[in-house]
Amino acid sequence: MSAPIDFYFDFASPYGYIASALIDQLAERQGRAVNWHAIVLDANFNSLERIRIPNNVMRSDYVRRDAERLAAYEGVKYQTPSTLGLHTEQAARLFHWINDRSPEQGRTFAKQVLEAYFVQDLNIASSEVLLAIAESMGITPEDFHEASSSSSSRQRLKAEVDMAEARGVFGSPFFIVEGERFWGNDRLPQLERWLSAGPY
Amino acid sequence: MSAPIDFYFDFASPYGYIASALIDQLAERQGRAVNWHAIVLDANFNSLERIRIPNNVMRSDYVRRDAERLAAYEGVKYQTPSTLGLHTEQAARLFHWINDRSPEQGRTFAKQVLEAYFVQDLNIASSEVLLAIAESMGITPEDFHEASSSSSSRQRLKAEVDMAEARGVFGSPFFIVEGERFWGNDRLPQLERWLSAGPY
Repeated sequence: MSAPIDFYFDFASPYGYIASALIDQLAERQGRAVNWHAIVLDANFNSLERIRIPNNVMRSDYVRRDAERLAAYEGVKYQTPSTLGLHTEQAARLFHWINDRSPEQGRTFAKQVLEAYFVQDLNIASSEVLLAIAESMGITPEDFHEASSSSSSRQRLKAEVDMAEARGVFGSPFFIVEGERFWGNDRLPQLERWLSAGPY
Repeated sequence: MSAPIDFYFDFASPYGYIASALIDQLAERQGRAVNWHAIVLDANFNSLERIRIPNNVMRSDYVRRDAERLAAYEGVKYQTPSTLGLHTEQAARLFHWINDRSPEQGRTFAKQVLEAYFVQDLNIASSEVLLAIAESMGITPEDFHEASSSSSSRQRLKAEVDMAEARGVFGSPFFIVEGERFWGNDRLPQLERWLSAGPY
């Protein structure tokens, strides 16, 4: 089996959501597996403090329009949430708790959270919204509490973010395969050529 | 005739160079004209001071590799210059002086300067390099001096940059058509769909 694709996303990122709807099909076409990695780009990502683009109005307007247009272009269902930039630590901790036990379940959880935010306009920074999704997947309230807020779950997410940073990840979505980094949905055609025709 | 495409680029931007090799063919396929606009993204572009991404090592490494890969992907001749981030005010002033007199000549000048930087690894911040290009196009040393450093030529560039800022331009390459903004080479397929199938 060839090397899998590492797919990094932040639950707060519209572009990460759009990528989540595209990456598995691309990988399947090329006979690769995908490892999904939820990260959090704001709080504790040290390098990102130096490279993040300040959220000024001009760029926000552009990104709002651009994400809508990209989703339409790619045929992905999308509605701009009423609040962009929600805190996503809890969702990311839950993701890893579930994903470490079952990548299939992790992916299901991630897709439901992303659709809750970017299609249904639900507040995924709210415990109630996340709990409803987790319960629909058979997760008990006790496990939900453990996954959401235990110190081991916090450490798990921090380690993931540290690892992402060490590998040179600095945005969402971000893809790494065979050591080659691809940033953004717009690099997916280049990633696909890399997989189909080899390094260039 | 349908509205032209406004194409903004900075002579210092590898991505602007790659776009310069792609945009005219795209426009021709769609029956549109292209107006080329040289801008300078660093010094006097006020909004950009707030949105520019600091040039840290991680991102530089990424961009260096990404530009090479993108050029290979698009089939555009490209060699990473030994010095990235040259000052490009003089080249931009010369461009507008020439372009205001003849857009065809302006485009020829722009292409030669971009190729000097991104194919031949010449220092386009040097007057000698720019003068050689201008002279090869029949521009006299007197006109070169006027275009390079007169106060009217400086004002011309400042007005161009102010206009770009007022229109919401904040990167290179940047395209505007029918009021719709597209940032980056990776948005060219979306621009082309806009032109071929209408707004979406």
